[in-house]
Order: sequence, then structure tokens, then C-alpha cells
Amino acid sequence: MLTYKKSFLLFAFVVLVSIVHAQTKLISYVRPLTGTARMGHVFPGATLPFGAVQLSPDTDTIPYEMNGKYNPDVYKYCAGYQYSDKTIVGFSHTHFSGTGHSDLGDFLLMPTTGELQLNPGTADHPETGYRSVFSHENEVATPAYYKVKLDDQNITAELTATTRVGMHRYRFPAGGPAHIIFDAMHGIYNYDDKNVWTFIRVEKDGSITGFRQTNGWARTRTVYFAMRFSKPIKEYGFRKYDPVQAYRGFWGKFKQDKNFPEMAGHCIRAWFDFDVAANETVEVKLALSPVSTEGALLNLNTEIAGWDFDAVKAAGEAAWEKELAKVTIKSSNQATLENFYTAMYHAALMPTVYMDVDGRYKGLDQNIHQANGFTNYSSYSLWDTYRAFHPLLNILQPQRNADMIQSMLAHYNQSVHQMLPVWSHYANENWCMIGYHSVSVIADAIVKGNASFDANKALDACVATAMHRNYDGLGEYIDRGYVPEDKSSSSVSKTLEYAYDDWAIAQAALKLNRTDIYEQFMKRSQNFRQVWNPATGFMQARMSDGSFIKDFDPLSTHQKGYIEGNAWNYSLYVPHDPAALISLMGGKKIFLRHLDSLFTMHLPDEFFAHTEDITRDGIIGNYVHGNEPSHHVAYLFTAAGAPYKTQEWVRKILLNQYKSAPDGLGGNDDCGQMSAWYIFNSLGFYPVAPGSSSYAIGSPAIEEASIQLDNGKTFSIVAHNQSPVNVYVKKVLLNGKPISNWQLEHSSILAGGKLEFFMSNRHSN
Amino acid sequence: MLTYKKSFLLFAFVVLVSIVHAQTKLISYVRPLTGTARMGHVFPGATLPFGAVQLSPDTDTIPYEMNGKYNPDVYKYCAGYQYSDKTIVGFSHTHFSGTGHSDLGDFLLMPTTGELQLNPGTADHPETGYRSVFSHENEVATPAYYKVKLDDQNITAELTATTRVGMHRYRFPAGGPAHIIFDAMHGIYNYDDKNVWTFIRVEKDGSITGFRQTNGWARTRTVYFAMRFSKPIKEYGFRKYDPVQAYRGFWGKFKQDKNFPEMAGHCIRAWFDFDVAANETVEVKLALSPVSTEGALLNLNTEIAGWDFDAVKAAGEAAWEKELAKVTIKSSNQATLENFYTAMYHAALMPTVYMDVDGRYKGLDQNIHQANGFTNYSSYSLWDTYRAFHPLLNILQPQRNADMIQSMLAHYNQSVHQMLPVWSHYANENWCMIGYHSVSVIADAIVKGNASFDANKALDACVATAMHRNYDGLGEYIDRGYVPEDKSSSSVSKTLEYAYDDWAIAQAALKLNRTDIYEQFMKRSQNFRQVWNPATGFMQARMSDGSFIKDFDPLSTHQKGYIEGNAWNYSLYVPHDPAALISLMGGKKIFLRHLDSLFTMHLPDEFFAHTEDITRDGIIGNYVHGNEPSHHVAYLFTAAGAPYKTQEWVRKILLNQYKSAPDGLGGNDDCGQMSAWYIFNSLGFYPVAPGSSSYAIGSPAIEEASIQLDNGKTFSIVAHNQSPVNVYVKKVLLNGKPISNWQLEHSSILAGGKLEFFMSNRHSN
Repeated sequence: MLTYKKSFLLFAFVVLVSIVHAQTKLISYVRPLTGTARMGHVFPGATLPFGAVQLSPDTDTIPYEMNGKYNPDVYKYCAGYQYSDKTIVGFSHTHFSGTGHSDLGDFLLMPTTGELQLNPGTADHPETGYRSVFSHENEVATPAYYKVKLDDQNITAELTATTRVGMHRYRFPAGGPAHIIFDAMHGIYNYDDKNVWTFIRVEKDGSITGFRQTNGWARTRTVYFAMRFSKPIKEYGFRKYDPVQAYRGFWGKFKQDKNFPEMAGHCIRAWFDFDVAANETVEVKLALSPVSTEGALLNLNTEIAGWDFDAVKAAGEAAWEKELAKVTIKSSNQATLENFYTAMYHAALMPTVYMDVDGRYKGLDQNIHQANGFTNYSSYSLWDTYRAFHPLLNILQPQRNADMIQSMLAHYNQSVHQMLPVWSHYANENWCMIGYHSVSVIADAIVKGNASFDANKALDACVATAMHRNYDGLGEYIDRGYVPEDKSSSSVSKTLEYAYDDWAIAQAALKLNRTDIYEQFMKRSQNFRQVWNPATGFMQARMSDGSFIKDFDPLSTHQKGYIEGNAWNYSLYVPHDPAALISLMGGKKIFLRHLDSLFTMHLPDEFFAHTEDITRDGIIGNYVHGNEPSHHVAYLFTAAGAPYKTQEWVRKILLNQYKSAPDGLGGNDDCGQMSAWYIFNSLGFYPVAPGSSSYAIGSPAIEEASIQLDNGKTFSIVAHNQSPVNVYVKKVLLNGKPISNWQLEHSSILAGGKLEFFMSNRHSN
Repeated sequence: MLTYKKSFLLFAFVVLVSIVHAQTKLISYVRPLTGTARMGHVFPGATLPFGAVQLSPDTDTIPYEMNGKYNPDVYKYCAGYQYSDKTIVGFSHTHFSGTGHSDLGDFLLMPTTGELQLNPGTADHPETGYRSVFSHENEVATPAYYKVKLDDQNITAELTATTRVGMHRYRFPAGGPAHIIFDAMHGIYNYDDKNVWTFIRVEKDGSITGFRQTNGWARTRTVYFAMRFSKPIKEYGFRKYDPVQAYRGFWGKFKQDKNFPEMAGHCIRAWFDFDVAANETVEVKLALSPVSTEGALLNLNTEIAGWDFDAVKAAGEAAWEKELAKVTIKSSNQATLENFYTAMYHAALMPTVYMDVDGRYKGLDQNIHQANGFTNYSSYSLWDTYRAFHPLLNILQPQRNADMIQSMLAHYNQSVHQMLPVWSHYANENWCMIGYHSVSVIADAIVKGNASFDANKALDACVATAMHRNYDGLGEYIDRGYVPEDKSSSSVSKTLEYAYDDWAIAQAALKLNRTDIYEQFMKRSQNFRQVWNPATGFMQARMSDGSFIKDFDPLSTHQKGYIEGNAWNYSLYVPHDPAALISLMGGKKIFLRHLDSLFTMHLPDEFFAHTEDITRDGIIGNYVHGNEPSHHVAYLFTAAGAPYKTQEWVRKILLNQYKSAPDGLGGNDDCGQMSAWYIFNSLGFYPVAPGSSSYAIGSPAIEEASIQLDNGKTFSIVAHNQSPVNVYVKKVLLNGKPISNWQLEHSSILAGGKLEFFMSNRHSN
């Protein structure tokens, strides 16, 4: 970990070489490999903005359990790729970005030559399977394109993608028989019974179609595919690896080992052989569908009609360039440019498009639905993304955000629980993490006027979700005002987050003139007071009998009552009423001292060693940036009357927690939340409490920025006298008029205009 | 087994009491319990003609394997019900009729009271589970209705059905808490990994929806359902019985044991509780769909809108009455009436409707298709049914038969094998038995002018199927003219059936003026000669080197070369060219002596003991009626110039092999083939070689019959001087003109008119 002083020194020595030229493509600043080492859990492969296909190399996959026990190493492979690995197993088509639990990894392809090997082999002995050694020297990763040399057989693999189709180009240097392995057993987070069923057909025209059904993080999940090769298959075959094969039926009348066009079973690996000339390439296109193989073929034919790999790559790069150009920045620091556009890239990966080109998708009821008037999205890590990611979309991607909300409302309509999504992916609710922060996303959009959906129905869905008594201690919360720890664990975290969500619902109700709801939920939103223990000075778990839990250690990350945070961090989670929090904690002076302690206390290196989803780098003092509950905390200095400390710490966090290197992310990127935090803070403001129409002003890290709004207007940001040490904001002008309350209104951004920061190396407070 | 003389005596003593009155409903003659003992493999429950739902009691289900070995007892439960059993496990919604291998048994319901038991218990100790003792005294079975008293708790269960919906009425004599068990693990022919996945939702309106995916005889099979109860559910729950539960996800935030509305897993049993008053009934409606739960709800709402069980039952009975009334017969023998209408019922159960009310169905490619202009059917046991069942439909149900052919052509279009169905069910090809007798069904319809489909395309599909070199020895057959036993087992049976199918294709080609195909396949149709061994006088297996197989025992049912028949029976399988067969066998005199031997030879009782799909009763001498390859054999007497022997033996088979009693069927009913044989022969004629436009005349067993044709005409049959001993036909008049060649043309039937038989107790030959 970099200390405070060292980091400043380092900053001062950075060679100032780079600025954005009109000629330089923004995509050239994106480093998909950033965050692929350790705990970033991002993937380096080819994908389009919010694309359904994430075609990326998997360097390993580890069983979820070893000898009946959870295998902690599985966690490293949430996105399938670890930078320190020496081998690549193959290229699969679906990956989460930055999650702390996982799934996916569907339909792995791997080109090989020589003797056919159908098992992946081991990292230590790659020669025992189809995997290959590779080197980062022979690796190129840009958002829409990935290239690597597979050293074992000197095969070059290139990947690109459209929204729903992955395209591969494999170059075989030596002529002769070449294999393309199609591993339909491969997957991320594999359990013994994860592979429920696989069905593969070789169609009459040589297309390969089928589906894979899994029981993983998503319990009842089916992904359909359609695949084509650029040259005729010479021969093909498959092998079943089913755990039980009690009944084989009457299939014995065929020789099934070769060229048998219908394969099915729990666990299947297939292979396709081609005669290739020396240096010949074989291209593969594989389309996904949430609906059917028919849908996959439609997607395939619609998105990539021909075999022009370079054209697909160029179109993908153009799509990314357009996406990145929503914000152009100026910085004399190359790392800032790289970090910023890498963050822009990471904040445009999830949720992913989840419908065929004709608008059909599978719903939570496993029926096929038509998305009328919106694009349906899947894979919502809402506990993370409600904080900064969705607010960022309300500025940069209002239509996408409204479509995502439409998708969440469709989920609600299909839900037998009558709940909005908690953590949902691929027509499943996986119930991961706590709260129901869909309501925050919806309220934020309503309050900010980005509600191209039926806002009143959306509010009804929020209220129904917030009244679901059977959900995770919520009945107790409704009755008592807090979640008792003896009834439901992580009770402090739940109580605090429910209270914030209550406030968000109330804000939407206020906007929609639903007074009864406003009053009901404003009252509930004060429930954070129920877990405040004046005796300890922390938010603390209570029992059903009203007593606070005994044996309380506010530093312990094992302390009952919290999840992904300790009492120090979580006690500050009242984003919607910092004034009340400050008052509870004894007023501004004591509160500021408390915040100072949080950021500066010295904890032993091993203190967070057992916290699996952040690295030691994800921590500053006892401030945990690698987990989300503290993401608003730096702004509490401002609320307590010390904005210069906000400015100081925001800049330190930006510098400290985000680096342009494979190990540059201090924790899981969490589906864009960590990156959205970076983008907001780099621009100089942050949505402390989504559901509010205003942002708190921090300290910008760029020299200039220009936000191209969907309404055609431009919002410009200029940081005068910007430098690594000039972190303090002396003055802020909006369209020439000073801002005195450290608040920026969303409407001011939408109106276009200019925000000017005047930076200094000294603060005036 | 009844001997020849005893049977005549018995016949003479039958009290002649019954004739058909206009007032007597034909349905009253149907005995659904006939064939439920031993090897008939029919089910006694409620269904409609060709209905998608077969709602029937299961008296047991046995695992397919015990200790890793095939469990022969599983065979008894092909239709879920054995008459000799003392307990009923419950009522499931899908059953095959008369098959010799099995599947299905989906969605078992069972009403219970008292302590909740979620496992079925054992037959010996029914008190250990939810099953109940029952008695045939308290059992009523008619085609559209089934009723039984469940003795353990004195609950009366009644079942009825529409095409796609099963309806239950349970009467609970004592008030209090009542359970309805919903066992989604229950199934017929269960393997260790048969239950692939089950998904159940309790919808907001109290409907239960979901699906069950199995890996059985059908490899990739999903059945969707929607269920409603007549009164509100008090509470409900489920239990998982998954073999492996490596990963449980984040579902712990709910109490899932009770009232949790989304259940999923490999193996699930659920329960629904109701508060009932004494003698209160609870009704249940459960609809099936091949498409989705949405489709199941559509079927449910369309077919049974309300809760009038008696009205559904009455409509079902009316549907059956209409079906049965296609043939009205007159007989002074009650058993004949019962046998005939039971046969008519059994010949109207399969194939089953396989589409939603809106025409959507799942195809072989697992995509959803729309049946345009036809009703889609599933479950084709074609090796059996091409012989007499489909020819019967060409008379009684021409539109259904044409629709079934349309369904087979849809299957062909969806097949990656580019083959017509062999044995297909529920969007799967299970490849059971030999040949590809779809081509016979199609050829028969084309030749008989019942081709309301594209006949030329259908012929192309037949040719493509017959040219599929990878299929079951067919490549060898094409190259050599026979299937070598060392390349593909059952080689004689295959060679003979391929040769017959070749002839059928040729007949269709002739009708369609496709001369090249006609010539090609007429040549192939002579391939039966290739396996004729003049040295032994039997059709005998040959090796690749051309030699006949050594160690030949023509009586042995273990002899290599045959399936479901020995050399004695199979050597007569040249239905399309009896003259050539007779010539090969040494001329008419020797041939007739051979046939006499077949019917009269004495074999020890245990000879056929190991033949699992026929009972000892299914045999007369060495003539095996319980398996299909001999079904045309009695007519070979006529071909050899001794029609009186055909007449004599046909009447003996009718009397001997079909009885109106639970053990009244001499073998599996085979999806209506055995029953169709009964109907044709009772009426006095039989389709010896489907694909021919003519029938061979036999000896009618009724006094009068009237066939109501779809074209509005009536074809009447009168047997003058009919009696149990007057089995010989002295003379036959068609519309007053004598028939001298013992042939009846299909066109003569379609034209309407009158066929008169003049019966005698003496023959003139």
C-alpha cells in the first residue's frame, strides 16, 4: 500500500507527456487488462458496450468445492482470467465484469492441432490437455478486440464481437488437421451439478446450434447458441462426461462417436476438425440468444452476415469510440487518461443486452416475452451499482438507464415474489447481497426527470417491494423499525440500507405527489436511529428484545450485524441524512475527528487479509474503498463543514485506488460501480444520495472535460490551475456564477453550460 | 391357454343376450380395465380421443435399475397400472397406451389427510407413504372418467379430462386439514438421472405453473403445466430430493419450507394444504403444454373455464361416443361388443395431440413451431402401428391420419438426421425398434388418395429416409441388398422390413408418376430374397462375406438375426410379395403345410417365458400374435389358395387373443395396433400390405356393421348366418355382386355400399 506521503512524491514525478488530441482515438487509452490481476475480476476479451457477448480468454476455472468444502481459489476466477496465470484454457462467450461471486463462462472454444485432447489439462501440466501456455508479450487487448498467441502450437487467436455474436479468427501456422474444441461443460464457478443439460445439433447447412442449461448462481438458466465456421467441417464428434449414465436408450443403432449430428447430455465436449493449409485462418461466429436456437440464428444472420473479421472489429471499435466520446477529457497525465477511459469502458459493460434482435427475451417466469419499446437488459448487481453507476447513466445514458428500469419493471411483473430485482441475471433472481436497491435506481431516475416509463407504476413496484414481509428481515423491520440480529443476520447493514431506500422511495413519491407514500416512507427512512448505540458511538446490532448485541468490536470485520464492512464503515451509512448522523455522533467537531480516524488509523497488514473481495490496496487506513458501503464517506467531510478534507481524500482515493496496470483496481470493479465512482470524482462531483437531484462537489482530477448530453447540449468542466498537488478547490463557478453550497444540481448539467473549478495547493478552511 | 377345441365349446355356451340398441351408448361397452393385467400395458384412467392428457392412476413405479442392473419388473409398469396391485400411488397426467418400453407419468397428484407424508411409501407398507390401498370393487373406469376410493383415508378420487387438461375431484369425508401432494419426481421408467430439472411457481393468482425436464426414453424432454385448485390454498411447501446439492445460492434469506412461491431443482415434491369441511370436495385442473407455462395457462383457460366437473365428464363422454359411433356393430355376443368398442377405444388413444390450442408446439429442434393447417401429433410407435392402425385411420379418421403425416413431415423437416420418425415422442426421436415405417404410413395414405399434404415432398422425405446410410445397417443394405449380421444385429428382420418399406415407397412413387423412384425401390423391394436360405428353408442371417450364419435354430427366440420373433415367424414377412415367398418356399402345397405347422406345433409352456412383451396367451402354437411381425400371417393361407384356413384362424385368433377382462389382451396393445387388428378382422378384412389399395377378405366376427365415413357415405357389412361355429365364408357380395378374388378395394369402401358375407360351418375347399 502506498502511504500518503509516498503517493504525493510519486505523483510529482510522473512525466507529463499526454494530452488528448482530436486525432487520438479515445479507445487507445482503454486498458482492458487493468484489473485482471488479483481482485479486479474484470475480463480482457472482446465485447461491445452493454453487449450480450463477452468473448474472453479463460486462464482457468476452479471447482467451487474441493473435497466437499468451498474452494477459496474459485474466487480468483469470477471473470475467468487471472493475469498471473501462464496458460489459457480457451475462449468463452459470457463473463461478468468485476463481480464478487460468479457464473457464466458459456461455450468455450479452443483451437488445437496434433493429437485430439478433449480435456483442458492442468495449469501445471498444460500438455495434458487442450489448454496452451501464453505470454502477455503476445497479447493485445482493446475493448472490441483481443489477440493472443497460443504458444503450445503457435496458433494465433483473435477475438472480436458484435452485441450478440462473438467472432474468432484462428491462424494455424502449420498445415494439416486442425481441431476446434467446443467445451460445453466449461463454466465459471462449477459445482458438481451445475451442468444441468446440454443439447447440440449440427444442422443440415453445417451450422451448430443448441443450448446449455445450468444450475448455478442463476438457478434455472438456459443459454442458446448458433455457431458457424468459415470453412466446411471435415469431421466432428463429441464425448459425454455425465456423472451418471443409467439409460442410453436406442441410440446404439448409430455410430455416435463421429459425425453424429445430435448430441445431448449433462456434460458434453465436442470437437470439429478442419484441413488447413499452412498459415490458413479458420473463422468462427457464435451467436447467443436468451430465447431459442432460432433466435440465435436470427442474431447471427442479422449481426454478422459475412466473414469479414476486420470489418466486425472496426465496427466494434467505432461503437466503443462513440460510447467513450460521451465524455472527452483533457489531462497532462497519461495514467489519468488511461484510468478515465478504462473506467468509462468498465462502466459500459453491464447490465447486458438480454433479448434477441427482434426484441424477444426469456422472462423470470421462463416464458418468452416481447420487449415493447425498450431494450431488455440483464445482470443487475444493484447493491453496488445503485450508488454511482446508475446515477452516471442518468447523465451519460439516460435512455439506457430508462430501458434498464423498464427491464426491472418487467422483472417485477414476472416475479412471483412481487419484488423488483435484487441481483438478477439471465431470467433469474439470485438474491445476492442485501436490500432491494432497484428502488434507489428508480427513484433517482424519477427525481431527475429521466422517467420515460410509467413512473407511478414504478413507484407502486417500489412500495410493493419495500413491503415484502417475508424478505430478509423486512417484516421485522416494518414492525420494529430495525432488523433484529437474532432474526436475520447483517441486521445493521440491512436496517441502514432499508432506511436509505425508504428515503429514496419517499423522494420519488414527493416528485409524483403521492403524499401518503412520501410520509410513510420518510418516517421509515429515520429508522437508522434504531440501531444507533449512543453507548458505543456506533450503529450496532440489536436483538429482538431491543438490547444491543454484546461483545462488540467496531473494528472487527467478523462483528455480527454487518456485511462487506465493519462498524466503523457501516456506521456512516446514512447518505440521505448526514446532518442527523452528525448530530447523533456528537456534532461536527467530534464527527470530523471520527472521519479523520477512519482514514488515518493504522491497521496491521493482515487485518483485512480474510476479506476476500478487496485487496490490501483497497484500503486507506480503515476506509475500505474496495467495498461499496463507504463510497459516499469522503463527502461527509463536506457535510460536516470541511469540504477541503473531501477534496483532499477524494484525490488521494483516485490516485491510490485506480492505477493503469493489471493490478490497478483496489477491489472488484463491481459491474462498473468502482469505475463510475472514478468517473464522477474525476469530474469533480458525486451523487452522495441517489434519489436527490443534486451532487456534492469534490475535487476534479482532470484539467478539462466535456460531457456530450443526449439532448444535444454540452456540459463543460474546467479545472483552472490543476496539478497533482493542487487538490483544493478555492472557488467553483457555474456559468460564471459562484456555487457556495458545494452542490451541483442535475438540472444544471442537463441545461448544458460550464463548471469552473479554481484549484490550489492550499485550502482556506 | 385355451386349446382349439375347448375354445369352440366355450363359444357355444356363451349366452346370447346382447345386441346394440339405439338407446345403448357405445361408451358403455368400453372396458378401460381390459388389458391392465399382465402385458397389455394399457392405462385405465380418463382421456379424450388422441388427447394430450392421459390422467390415470399409477399403482406403482419401479426404478429402471436395481443395484446397477436392469430391473425386469419395471416392464410391468409401462402404463403405470397393474391390475393385481393393491395400492395406488396417485394420479399422473401422461401415459402411453400399450407400449413395450416406457416414459412419462408426469405430475402426480395424490389427496391425503392427517400427517403429511411426502414419499410414496412401498406397496408392502403403504402406511409408510402417501399411497393408499384400494379395491377394484370401488373402482369405476370409463374412457373419460375414472373413480376410485382410496381406502387408507376413505377419500374418493374422480378423474376426467379434456384434450389438454386433467380434472380431479377429491372428496374428503372427514373435515380438517387436507393435503394434495404434487410429486414432480414421480415418473414411469425412472433412471438415476431421469429428473433433469423441475421448476414450479405459485403465481400471484394462486395458479401453479412450471415444467419438468426429463432424460429418459425421450432424451431432451420438457413438459410444461398450469394447475388451479377450486378453493384457496391454505399453505404449501416443497422438499428437494436432489442427488447433489453442491450450491444453494443466496436463497437462505427466505424461509423456503413454507409458502415460498418459486421452487426448482432436479427432484421436487410439493404439497398444498386446504381446510375442508366433512364431505367437501376439492377440484383440481391441470393443463399440459409442449411450449410453455403460458401455453399451459392458455390451454387451461380455453378448455375448462369453470369448475363443473360433471359437465367436463359429460363432454368427454360425448366426444368418445362420437368417436366410437364411426362404426356401429350388431352382435348377439356381449363379449364381442365389449371387445370391439374397447378396441375402438384403444385404437383412439395414440398418437396424441401435441400442440397448444393456438397451434404452437415444440419441434425436434427444441424450437417452438406453429402447426399451420394441421393438428400436430406426437408419440408414434410406427414399427407397430403402420400395419393396421394407420390403415384403419385411413378409413375411419382420414383427416387425423393426414394430420399425423403432416406432423411426421414436420419432424422430418426439423430432423438433423433428415429422417422421418422411427419412434418419436414429445419432440424427441427415441429410435426404438427397427425400420422406418413412416414411409409405409405415408405410402398407404398416398396410394389410398388420403394425401391432403404435399405428396411429392412426402415421397422425397421417404426416399431421403430410405437412403440414410448411417442408419442401422442401411448403408450395408443399400450396398449389398442385405444387412450383414456382423455389421448390424437383427439383420434378417431389418432386411425384410427394409424390403417391404422399399415396396411401399415404390407404390407411392407409382401413384405419383415418379418412375425413377418406382423402379429403384421396386428393385430394392426384392431384397428379401437375399436372406432366403434354401438350405434351411428359412430367412436366415448372413455375414459380410455372404455366408449364412452358423448354429441356426429356426425356433429359438434367441437366434441371431431377428427381433421380436423367431425364424419361423419372421421368414413369412414378405407382405408385399406373398407369391414370391410361396415360390421360394417350394410352392403352395409345401407352404400351406409350413403354415399349418406354425399354428399347430406344440411348444412347451416355458418356451416363450423369457419373451417379455407377450404373455403365454399371446401365442397359438408357434404363431405369436402378441408381437407384430406375424399380424398378416393368417392371410397367407388365402394367398396360397386356402382362404378357408385364413377364415378359420382369424376367428380363432379373435376369440383366443382378445377377451373382455383385465387380462384379456395377449400382449402389449402397442398403441392401438393390436386393437386395430381386432377391428379389421372383426369386420372381415385386413390390410396385408399397407401401400396396397386393397384389403384381403377374412371372416367377420360381427353380425352387422356400419361404417360412417367422413365423406358422408356409409359402408355396411352384413354377415348372414353368423354364429360362433359358422366361421367359413361361402360367398361375398359387394353391392350384390360377387367378389371372387378375396380382395376388397379401398375405393369400394369410400364409395359406400354393402358388403355381404354368407357364413357357414363348413368350407368348400
